[in-house]
Parts: sequence; C-alpha cells; structure tokens
Amino acid sequence: MRYKLVISYRGTTYYGWQAQVEQQSIQTTIEQVLSTILNTPIKIYASGRTDAGVHAYGQVAHFDFGSIADLAKLQYGLNSLLPADIRIDQLTKVDDDFHARFSAVAKCYIYKINTGRPNPFTYQDELFTLVPLDLKVLKDAAKLFLGTHNFQDFTAKEEDNDNFVRRIDDISIITDGERITIKVRGSGFMRYQMRMMIGTLLEIAKGKLSSEFIKQHLDQNDRHVVAYKAPSHGLYLQEVIYE
Amino acid sequence: MRYKLVISYRGTTYYGWQAQVEQQSIQTTIEQVLSTILNTPIKIYASGRTDAGVHAYGQVAHFDFGSIADLAKLQYGLNSLLPADIRIDQLTKVDDDFHARFSAVAKCYIYKINTGRPNPFTYQDELFTLVPLDLKVLKDAAKLFLGTHNFQDFTAKEEDNDNFVRRIDDISIITDGERITIKVRGSGFMRYQMRMMIGTLLEIAKGKLSSEFIKQHLDQNDRHVVAYKAPSHGLYLQEVIYE
Repeated sequence: MRYKLVISYRGTTYYGWQAQVEQQSIQTTIEQVLSTILNTPIKIYASGRTDAGVHAYGQVAHFDFGSIADLAKLQYGLNSLLPADIRIDQLTKVDDDFHARFSAVAKCYIYKINTGRPNPFTYQDELFTLVPLDLKVLKDAAKLFLGTHNFQDFTAKEEDNDNFVRRIDDISIITDGERITIKVRGSGFMRYQMRMMIGTLLEIAKGKLSSEFIKQHLDQNDRHVVAYKAPSHGLYLQEVIYE
Repeated sequence: MRYKLVISYRGTTYYGWQAQVEQQSIQTTIEQVLSTILNTPIKIYASGRTDAGVHAYGQVAHFDFGSIADLAKLQYGLNSLLPADIRIDQLTKVDDDFHARFSAVAKCYIYKINTGRPNPFTYQDELFTLVPLDLKVLKDAAKLFLGTHNFQDFTAKEEDNDNFVRRIDDISIITDGERITIKVRGSGFMRYQMRMMIGTLLEIAKGKLSSEFIKQHLDQNDRHVVAYKAPSHGLYLQEVIYE
C-alpha cells in the first residue's frame, strides 16, 4: 500500500533533500526514522529535491508498506523521533498509482526578502538586502516570466537534450512592512530555476540590470545560463499541487 | 570615555551572556571583535547575565575607551565581524557615570509560548506546549506577582544574606492566534527568577497547580525554592530602562 507524507522542514543544517553519501540529508533522516519504526528498510520518493539551506512548508513524498492500522499513531511516533526541524504534518493512505513526483500538476514556491536591518533571529530564514528595491520595477519584471517559456538560461540542469519548457502560472509579490514575499506557482521547476529567476529579479529591482535582460534570456536558441542565483536560505517549497 | 551598546542576540548557540572559561559566550564574542577593531583589550559590562539559550532584543552593555571619531563606522565594523546571531543595534557615547547594570532602573522581559503544532522554524525561539492553557486563570495568577515582594522562592540565587526583595511593575499577557506572550516589567530580576515565575504560571494555567501556590511562596520566612522553571529558549530580555 502507498502512503503520502506532507513534510515541513527548516533546511538550515542539512545538505538538502537528497545528499551525497555520508552527508545528512532530509530524505535520509526521515528514512532512518521510518525504517526504525516500521522495522524494515523504507525508501521515500519526494516531489523533487530541494537544495542545501532551502526550506519547505509542504514537501510531499510517498512510500510503500503493508497495511498500517493507526496512521495517526505512526505520525506521532515519527515526529517524536525526528529532529525538531523536520515535521510530518500529514500522513495519509493514497492510491497505488499516486506518485509524489509524477502525479504533481504544479508547485508553489515562495522567496522571503527583508529590506530592514538584519536581525539575529531570521538571518537563515529570509534574505536581508540593504540595497533598496524598486517594487514597481520588480513587479513589472516578474510578469515577464508568466506563461510557457524555454527556461534553459534559468537553470543549471545539465542534460541539454532535455526539455527546458516550463509554465509559470502566477507570480505575486506581497509586501508587509519591510518584508517582501515573492510567490511563484508553476508547472514544475528545474535545478536552481527559482533561485536564478529570483536572483535576476533582484538585480533588476536594484537597478543593476534592465528588464530587457529577462527577454534576452527566455526562449532563446543558444544557451547562456544567467549568473544570478539568489541564496538558498530565502527559498521555501510551499506546496505541491495534485489533481 | 564611556560608550553604551544596545545588543540583540539569538542565544541558541551560546553558553549564555557570560560563560565559563573555554566556552563561547555572547560577552566574549563581542569583546573579541571590539578588541580586534580597537586594537587593545576591551572589557564590556552588561546590565546582567542571560542564561544559555535566552535571547535578547535589547541587552545593554558599556565599555571604556579613548575618543572615537566615528561611532557609526565602528558599529558597522562590529556588525561586519560579529556572527549574524549577534547584532549591535545602537552604539552611543554616554556620561562617565553611566553604568549598564547600576544605572538601570527597570527591565522588561518577554516569554513566548505557542499552543499550536510545533513548527520547525521557531522551536528554538518559543515554547511549544500541547497542554491547553486556561488564559483567564493565567491572567489572574500573574497579577499575584505584582508589587514589591520577597522573591526568594522564585530564584536560584545562592547568597542567602542578600536582599531578595524585588518590584514587579507590570505583567501583561498578549494573545495572537495560537501565540501567547507574557511581558513582565520589574525593578530587577535575580537568577532564574523570570523562568521560575513563568514555569509556575504555566503549571497553574495547565490546571496542575492552584494559584494559592504563588501566595504560599511569596514573602515567606523560610525559603523553599519552587521546582518549576520554564525552558530558556522562550525567554527574551526585551529592554533595559534607564532614567
């Protein structure tokens, strides 16, 4: 039988969702605890990886196991054994054809920016920037990403034969005092895509780049990957959307 | 000449404001950076210590040094060299008779409680409790601490000949959704006093102790230190008040 996990985590102290051998990753941490409780090696499959330092409010993963009588009890047990910076927020039984990655129809990421004075409590959870950002310019530039485009210049993905076409459904920019949150919903995101999009938008909002830069790098024939990549610690996988 | 620092810090990774030799404390971290920049050994004197794990929005300390031409530049330099979980928020010249500890007329602490589901982002910055708290009972019990009392049962201070009398000017309890903040302003606080007061209030709000317990431990002749001490990670030194 197949089970679905909805997971929140603070990525600060991990080498990302999936890591090289010997390094502590979020995936291996959860697998170890699941395997301990279920007394058999369990592998979990996520909707996608997140980089070292990236956080999640709603990462989704699935695993297979026999019949589990009391899912609430298992969820409680998992949270008791897991470190406090990883929480299982939901644990449900799903159909056998559910796949955390392949069944996903969209994903939502947010990026947190703080234009105020750096504070010692959130410096690993949001990007502090002392350079003023032009919000109007930021909003206008963000719109250029909307729709279906070839994003080969906004990813570090290495397999050139792959399909670089993705769809961005929505970008909203929410301000709350000195805080700016950029929310992006799209069909899917390639390696570093969110960080390169945000990194480019920040350069534009700081007045260091023109919005034309985005047009020059979307839907191009030749690949020239952009040099701007926002730090991982402002990025959150907010939600994975299924049918 | 004497200079005053207003400092915010996240206490999570430190052994408190002042630590034993060889352990990293907030005081020694700041002293090292100040001494490096000013090129001479500098000692700083705080309004008081904070325990390991306790945070501060407005700790105050002073130090002596010759004439400093550009205080803003020194503050910038300090923040550049200090780890991101310690920030110098103000640096000003003060009169030579100012003393961070002895000139203080009052202090304000806050304690942060979250009655919602533990979340991976703030578990070191607020106390999560799954036991429901009776807010009315909490507010009524808190009032018992108001005024001038002998707090010998609410401190771990060891010198019995000392004066245990302190004045609590105000206790306010602010709720915001699942969050409860207890704000206490008083003439001064002894070792563990805030944590023992809050720990006792939490037992009462959980229905495990009667409010009578506070009356039985204030202004007593015999000393029977209470056994309840709230964890350090919910506590913040918010402000030190001077004339």
